[in-house]
Amino acid sequence: MDNEPTAEQRLQSLLARIRAVDNAEGERTRAYLDTLTKPPGSLGRLETLAIQLSAITGQRTPLVSPPGVAVFAADHGVADEGVSAFPQEVTAQMVANFAQGGAAINVFARQIGAQVDVVDVGVASPLALPSVVDAKVRAGTANMVREDAMSQGEAQRAIGVGADTVERLAGQGAKSVIVGEMGIANTTASSAMLAALTQVPVATVVGAGTGISSAQQAHKVAVIEQALRARQAHADDPLDVLSKLGGLEMAAMTGAYLAAAAHRLPAIVDGFIATVAALTACRLCPEARGYLIFGHRSEEPGHATALAALDAEPLLALGMRLGEGSGAALAFPLIQAAASMLSDMATFDKAGVSSSGV
Amino acid sequence: MDNEPTAEQRLQSLLARIRAVDNAEGERTRAYLDTLTKPPGSLGRLETLAIQLSAITGQRTPLVSPPGVAVFAADHGVADEGVSAFPQEVTAQMVANFAQGGAAINVFARQIGAQVDVVDVGVASPLALPSVVDAKVRAGTANMVREDAMSQGEAQRAIGVGADTVERLAGQGAKSVIVGEMGIANTTASSAMLAALTQVPVATVVGAGTGISSAQQAHKVAVIEQALRARQAHADDPLDVLSKLGGLEMAAMTGAYLAAAAHRLPAIVDGFIATVAALTACRLCPEARGYLIFGHRSEEPGHATALAALDAEPLLALGMRLGEGSGAALAFPLIQAAASMLSDMATFDKAGVSSSGV
Repeated sequence: MDNEPTAEQRLQSLLARIRAVDNAEGERTRAYLDTLTKPPGSLGRLETLAIQLSAITGQRTPLVSPPGVAVFAADHGVADEGVSAFPQEVTAQMVANFAQGGAAINVFARQIGAQVDVVDVGVASPLALPSVVDAKVRAGTANMVREDAMSQGEAQRAIGVGADTVERLAGQGAKSVIVGEMGIANTTASSAMLAALTQVPVATVVGAGTGISSAQQAHKVAVIEQALRARQAHADDPLDVLSKLGGLEMAAMTGAYLAAAAHRLPAIVDGFIATVAALTACRLCPEARGYLIFGHRSEEPGHATALAALDAEPLLALGMRLGEGSGAALAFPLIQAAASMLSDMATFDKAGVSSSGV
Repeated sequence: MDNEPTAEQRLQSLLARIRAVDNAEGERTRAYLDTLTKPPGSLGRLETLAIQLSAITGQRTPLVSPPGVAVFAADHGVADEGVSAFPQEVTAQMVANFAQGGAAINVFARQIGAQVDVVDVGVASPLALPSVVDAKVRAGTANMVREDAMSQGEAQRAIGVGADTVERLAGQGAKSVIVGEMGIANTTASSAMLAALTQVPVATVVGAGTGISSAQQAHKVAVIEQALRARQAHADDPLDVLSKLGGLEMAAMTGAYLAAAAHRLPAIVDGFIATVAALTACRLCPEARGYLIFGHRSEEPGHATALAALDAEPLLALGMRLGEGSGAALAFPLIQAAASMLSDMATFDKAGVSSSGV
């Protein structure tokens, strides 16, 4: 008898470890904020963030630095349908760029004091890059128009890769988690998943991705509609949707968000693809929602639908549509500022400042 | 004969030094951005920022770090009319808090690697704080309901204090400028200036400030309307508006923005009060506008009017209304990211990544 747990058992055990955030600690922080030397409520979203950070960590002075940053890369069989502005080999080329530190996420991660863990969870071609974590579950998904993108077992294994990554980052001292993705055609897979999970019309969630024309966009809608008809994924079964229509990197991100919740670490969610993965995580375990902070509102039209499904309002709206975790990394300094406000600001009493006389 | 230039001569010489930003360099950066390893335009506002930074500095890889941060503090005679939620002594108490490093701006400045220069340009009470720059032009403005807030000469001297401060920060190596303010009742003075400069109804630009009730807000509107009738400032004479209705800290901020433009340094503008000072600077010298980056959209209702008058869209909208430069400091990492994108990201060629095949 093999004592190694199966991918399914690992997922069940991960889900079982997740507890709701500590709202009582959040409320204590809410009261404390009004003792700091500023008019009550005058720091707006930063105050809400501080309350959430306390609820996540159970601490009045939560730590969020250093953040752990990982990028999951994988290919998509549906790229064969001509849905992207870039050829499939760009996935592997960009992985090499991540490994060399030249991509946007590398630049933004350095600024927040983090390295980028690059994880191959399913790039189509073999990679020979020593600094890239080899956790390939399969060499890209199948073309969802013709067959299921992957099996449920493969999806569970990819979720496990994401969970392992967060485990490793936490072990290295990370106090918060940022995950990003790279995968040519992954806005197609994400749009298909989102349409299946929320039952909205495909045309409302499909955008230009990395930059296709409106004629190509119509083709992308038709491809996704064809895949949805052929796959018949069950809206109330997130694992079914993920395996039939999703991607290996989205499965890994789902696992990363679940593991962050299990570890009581704040997870900063990037744009469209990340938010679809976050929605998948919350469908698997609604308690995971409280651990998520949304970094950036993407230009990709499906993002608004995905955010609404999670009742989420991102911190930034800078008209970006890059992915890689870039929007989450750019939002990190705000989260750090919220934490520093709690640990470093003086109270009215301590500073000898008169509070409002009105 | 005294060879020391008068405050008026100094202001004229400052204005004469300001040149329009270098849009040709900005356009070269726009073209360069499309060679970096990302879909064209996918970094949104960050790309616009990078173009502006190049136009400001005349450089393809502009430096913005370290930023120089200064807070100007002054009192307002109009506080006598009961327009604020806080008593006037809070201005001096908060200056002490800045000096001890316990205020929000101290916390946020530390995070971006800056110290806070605290400058007394007109606090009502004597301060005995060695770390505070004593540049008091007068001990608070007069009550503008009864007389001009200050003379034109005093306003010019306060503008000079702001310019001197930027001069000092630049001399210490600052590559960008953030200025903030502290002054009980300064949203009242700013609202009066804005109404005079833009000729909009007072009620549309008056808000809760640090937190007054709606009845108190109606009183604040009445006080400002009374001051506007009594002072009869000329809308097309920014120095007249500033001296009759403004504040010493707003004059100093005006001078700081002008000096930043003269030094070709990016200036990050904070919320409502800062934007009214920025508007004053741009009325004195329209070429100053190109050097301004707007950090945060304040909850104070007049801010939208002031931003519209400058055709400005802030980077952040976090529901804050604190001042001190806090919103500008929080936006700084985005500006740093825009600069790092230019200096540190790989090009498609260098990274061996295929650009869009579509």
